[in-house]
Amino acid sequence: TLSEIATMAGVTPSTVSRALNPAASHLLSKKTSERILALCDHVGYRPSLLARGTATGFTYKVAMILHDMEKDLNAHDWNRITCATSAFLQESGYSLVLLRTSEKGTSMDMQVSHFLMSGIADAYITSPSMLKNNTLEMLNSLKSPLFVICEHGVPFPVSDGVLRSDADAFKQVWSRIPKEMHGKICFLSTINDNTQRLLTNIKRAAWDLGIDANNAISTLSLARTSKVPAMEYAEAYHQTKKMIKSFNQFDFVWCISDFFALGVKDALTECGRCPGKDVFILGYGDLETFPGVSEKPVLSTISANTHEIARNMCSVIMKKLDGEHTDIVTVKSSFISRSTF
Amino acid sequence: TLSEIATMAGVTPSTVSRALNPAASHLLSKKTSERILALCDHVGYRPSLLARGTATGFTYKVAMILHDMEKDLNAHDWNRITCATSAFLQESGYSLVLLRTSEKGTSMDMQVSHFLMSGIADAYITSPSMLKNNTLEMLNSLKSPLFVICEHGVPFPVSDGVLRSDADAFKQVWSRIPKEMHGKICFLSTINDNTQRLLTNIKRAAWDLGIDANNAISTLSLARTSKVPAMEYAEAYHQTKKMIKSFNQFDFVWCISDFFALGVKDALTECGRCPGKDVFILGYGDLETFPGVSEKPVLSTISANTHEIARNMCSVIMKKLDGEHTDIVTVKSSFISRSTF
Repeated sequence: TLSEIATMAGVTPSTVSRALNPAASHLLSKKTSERILALCDHVGYRPSLLARGTATGFTYKVAMILHDMEKDLNAHDWNRITCATSAFLQESGYSLVLLRTSEKGTSMDMQVSHFLMSGIADAYITSPSMLKNNTLEMLNSLKSPLFVICEHGVPFPVSDGVLRSDADAFKQVWSRIPKEMHGKICFLSTINDNTQRLLTNIKRAAWDLGIDANNAISTLSLARTSKVPAMEYAEAYHQTKKMIKSFNQFDFVWCISDFFALGVKDALTECGRCPGKDVFILGYGDLETFPGVSEKPVLSTISANTHEIARNMCSVIMKKLDGEHTDIVTVKSSFISRSTF
Repeated sequence: TLSEIATMAGVTPSTVSRALNPAASHLLSKKTSERILALCDHVGYRPSLLARGTATGFTYKVAMILHDMEKDLNAHDWNRITCATSAFLQESGYSLVLLRTSEKGTSMDMQVSHFLMSGIADAYITSPSMLKNNTLEMLNSLKSPLFVICEHGVPFPVSDGVLRSDADAFKQVWSRIPKEMHGKICFLSTINDNTQRLLTNIKRAAWDLGIDANNAISTLSLARTSKVPAMEYAEAYHQTKKMIKSFNQFDFVWCISDFFALGVKDALTECGRCPGKDVFILGYGDLETFPGVSEKPVLSTISANTHEIARNMCSVIMKKLDGEHTDIVTVKSSFISRSTF
């Protein structure tokens, strides 16, 4: 027990308790907490989370509520945010629970309501698919605070969370594009994709710099054959080759994703153009630094700074759970210049 | 409280408790449990999970321990298993916690040990990256049962879980290949990929049918440029076109993944061959039924039956937690014939 460990270590029980609590161990010297931890490891002792929960009223869990779980966890940005959030939460002694909802009224949807009403976690994070599917109403049953990661231009449905803002990165891109290139820029996305918002933000950044965005940038749409990132490369590559005449009218291809940009890059290269020299390509998502994608990233891109998003998200959650006042935190995206622009 | 709800519903408190417990609600008539649930919803009542945990000693959590969290959740098979497991657990009133470990001795690794020793969950599932990285030793600190999903041919490190077996599917494939094609079959994978085991299993299936596997199937390796599924299509497509002479020696291309197979299919088609007619292509993973990939799957493939794996995994876990005897359950893969073979 705690008091036995305390006696063995020659400290008070509350010192042992602090050493074992990641959120409180900074109150002790590193040497003391390491000594106590080594002793606990030696005898295989940890206070049960259930007992601790009963004493403090905390579950030490943060739940992420997902609607399209397969898609969300497979999307590179959200995958990275989930993984980094899990790591930051663990540093604070918390862990991440996944809750998978479904259409309203289904058994899976009811099970999640059930969990929420039973206080399964101390705080909740919604995923992009929850926001897209307007399933936020189920979150009304929450007894605990709800946190959201929203993109600039999307209404922020609650009072806490992280706002992603591309505005400064987009301005940086515009200020690097020579004026002679205006009118020869295309924004590449798919038909029926929810890209209008992104294009609006790109144009707004141009207007802020006094650029006539409507004349500077055109749109080029690809037929959508698949909805997973894994097949976007193939879509962009093959369709760029087919539509090469349209592409040859442009000197700058601003792509909605890095997968698109990589497909465009390979197709244009095969058609005799030289990305970074006679044609410029910009992606979105910083895919090439995703573990295992590329040892030597070449694509110029915009990074949403997923690590910073997760760090700020966890910090806001921990503050809120400590009873401190919190606000929406803005995390700015970064323009990353590599070979293609 | 529970007894107030019971009085309002005119039933005993234990009936209310059963109606609210997904694992016990089958003991009541559907009508009764629906009536009680509607009443609880109306007054916004659910017993707190913390209180229930204190009473029963259960956390009602199953933790999945991941080493390369980003890669595991991004790999289609594991993504599907994770999502389906989460859904099946929810049906039993359990939820899935993600624990993210790191290299031995790091702070993240210690945090996970900490969680395990505190009894964060009632049962644990390891992920492929945990097994690959030989990080299983940290699981020694577990007080609760550990479950593993292993592939046939990989040593099964614990006594419970699900064994994936491709043997029957591979035999089905071999029995469909005409004898004249033996010697014109290639197994396509990447250099340095851990594919030896899969090839061994493919050959073993041939031998079981009396086929001289060493003469029937050759290997063809692609240079590996990336380790994520998202770029495998591009690798296979471009390298097939470059190595078209090698490919033209074969009538049957047996690919290590569906992404590879799709890339090969598109490249061979462009080079004038007709998949399904004068060349046969087989993938692995049933990627095209992943949400959003393809409305009309064409690729012949082998499905690992991830939904069945998850269903059996949850059923074994629940049995074990009920104190029943459990064994390793084998889930067989299926051969799915579509247009390309």
